[in-house]
Amino acid sequence: MSSIVYLNGEFIAAEEARISPNDRGFLFADGVYEVAKYYHGKAFRFQDHLDRLKRSLKEICIAYDTEKLEAVFMELIRKNDMLDKHAGIYLQISRGAAKRSHHFPEDIEPTVYAYAFDLPSAVEKLENGIKVITRDDIRWQRCDIKSVSLLPNTMLYDEAHKNGAGECILIRDGKVAEATHSSVLCVKNGIVVTRPLSNLILPGITRKVIMELCAAHNIPVEERLFTQEELHEMDEVFIAGTGSEICPVVQIEDKLIADGKPGKTTRLLQKLFFELT
Amino acid sequence: MSSIVYLNGEFIAAEEARISPNDRGFLFADGVYEVAKYYHGKAFRFQDHLDRLKRSLKEICIAYDTEKLEAVFMELIRKNDMLDKHAGIYLQISRGAAKRSHHFPEDIEPTVYAYAFDLPSAVEKLENGIKVITRDDIRWQRCDIKSVSLLPNTMLYDEAHKNGAGECILIRDGKVAEATHSSVLCVKNGIVVTRPLSNLILPGITRKVIMELCAAHNIPVEERLFTQEELHEMDEVFIAGTGSEICPVVQIEDKLIADGKPGKTTRLLQKLFFELT
Repeated sequence: MSSIVYLNGEFIAAEEARISPNDRGFLFADGVYEVAKYYHGKAFRFQDHLDRLKRSLKEICIAYDTEKLEAVFMELIRKNDMLDKHAGIYLQISRGAAKRSHHFPEDIEPTVYAYAFDLPSAVEKLENGIKVITRDDIRWQRCDIKSVSLLPNTMLYDEAHKNGAGECILIRDGKVAEATHSSVLCVKNGIVVTRPLSNLILPGITRKVIMELCAAHNIPVEERLFTQEELHEMDEVFIAGTGSEICPVVQIEDKLIADGKPGKTTRLLQKLFFELT
Repeated sequence: MSSIVYLNGEFIAAEEARISPNDRGFLFADGVYEVAKYYHGKAFRFQDHLDRLKRSLKEICIAYDTEKLEAVFMELIRKNDMLDKHAGIYLQISRGAAKRSHHFPEDIEPTVYAYAFDLPSAVEKLENGIKVITRDDIRWQRCDIKSVSLLPNTMLYDEAHKNGAGECILIRDGKVAEATHSSVLCVKNGIVVTRPLSNLILPGITRKVIMELCAAHNIPVEERLFTQEELHEMDEVFIAGTGSEICPVVQIEDKLIADGKPGKTTRLLQKLFFELT
């Protein structure tokens, strides 16, 4: 958590940041967010985050000019002395504060909140991999919108946390969707397998980077639905996300993936990914 | 909106109420709520609201002693001079503020926010009925928890609002679920028909009162699933909720229900309901 945060146009001390409890972000989860990563002061795929944010805003009809965000993010990095480390920027835009009503009020000013935080690579996890659990995907049917309507994600991730696992892979109608805050990719017979984008998963930016890396290095990819049973039979499994980067999954519930060690395609993709960052 | 609100143990001026933007209610929709109604200073079915609140809190693992809430609500009614009118109390309990992490933090103090507001009966709607629209139910699969993860409800209700309709009835897998913030009940051949309680709908308190009224007055009830097609063929349709009370639905999309006038069982239930309040 940075000491200087951004709230509605101002850079202020974190402890001074306050919003109205009538903010629709608080009352209705009526808002969207992004988490961007800065490697030694340099934004990674900023434009992709901005594009996704614009789409999320549009989908829930919040009008907000995102033009100045790049400068705001950079200023947060600078003001919090994070130019020489790995940092994350959390940004949330809610519809704003108003008398409570289910419909979207007219003439409402969005609440814009952003802060910087230390986001080092989870070296031990990237090296040795993590255990995950699986649960039914109980979320809504617009997971393509990066909204703050995240109660199900927290409930499901909390189960992973309490079980000593690093993520929770979500299964919808028998098929693997994604994890609570990362994408799920697998490798079978040298082919990278992942679910196609739809309303049921977030268009992950790290996922997109991996697709580009595969294309550039002739690693075959199949975007297709796959079942929970197939998941257990994969040669390699990994999760991908801005925070998670490319993290091997070596155990699902009580079963090891292959020999319980990160696989060679995962290792190659990690190497190619870190060359970019 | 009342001028005196309750926030974390204190009664304060509404404009002074402020919370941290790191409140998990804002970041993750990690909280629950209730809306209770006071008819001329007298709470209606307070214990039912309290019981439902306790269940919601338990389901998402928030520890909070609800004992003092009855006195807090009454104090809000008094402090805002609402003893002689119809008022609502909105209460929200979020997990509290903490460094952002998907799992539930330990040692976190819940944020408790409550306010009173004018909640007169919508006389014209109760008398003449409303038009509604129907949409696919895109919400999560724990609609039995009264959580603030309400973005889908607001998106769907906003469509009703923009279409000049008073509610949006949600259809899941071809079956009627409920509306965005009310229960849906129908009458066919003198029998009150409504969907059985499950994880997919909120256990409505007005719905429960109606079930009791039906039992006491020998009005037959069938709790069963029914399709969108059946909905259009009902003799009567009405929505029920703390704010909506018992409100006739006379038009669904562009089709009238029966002759487009509130039906006699709806009228009888309204009469019996208002005798209680």
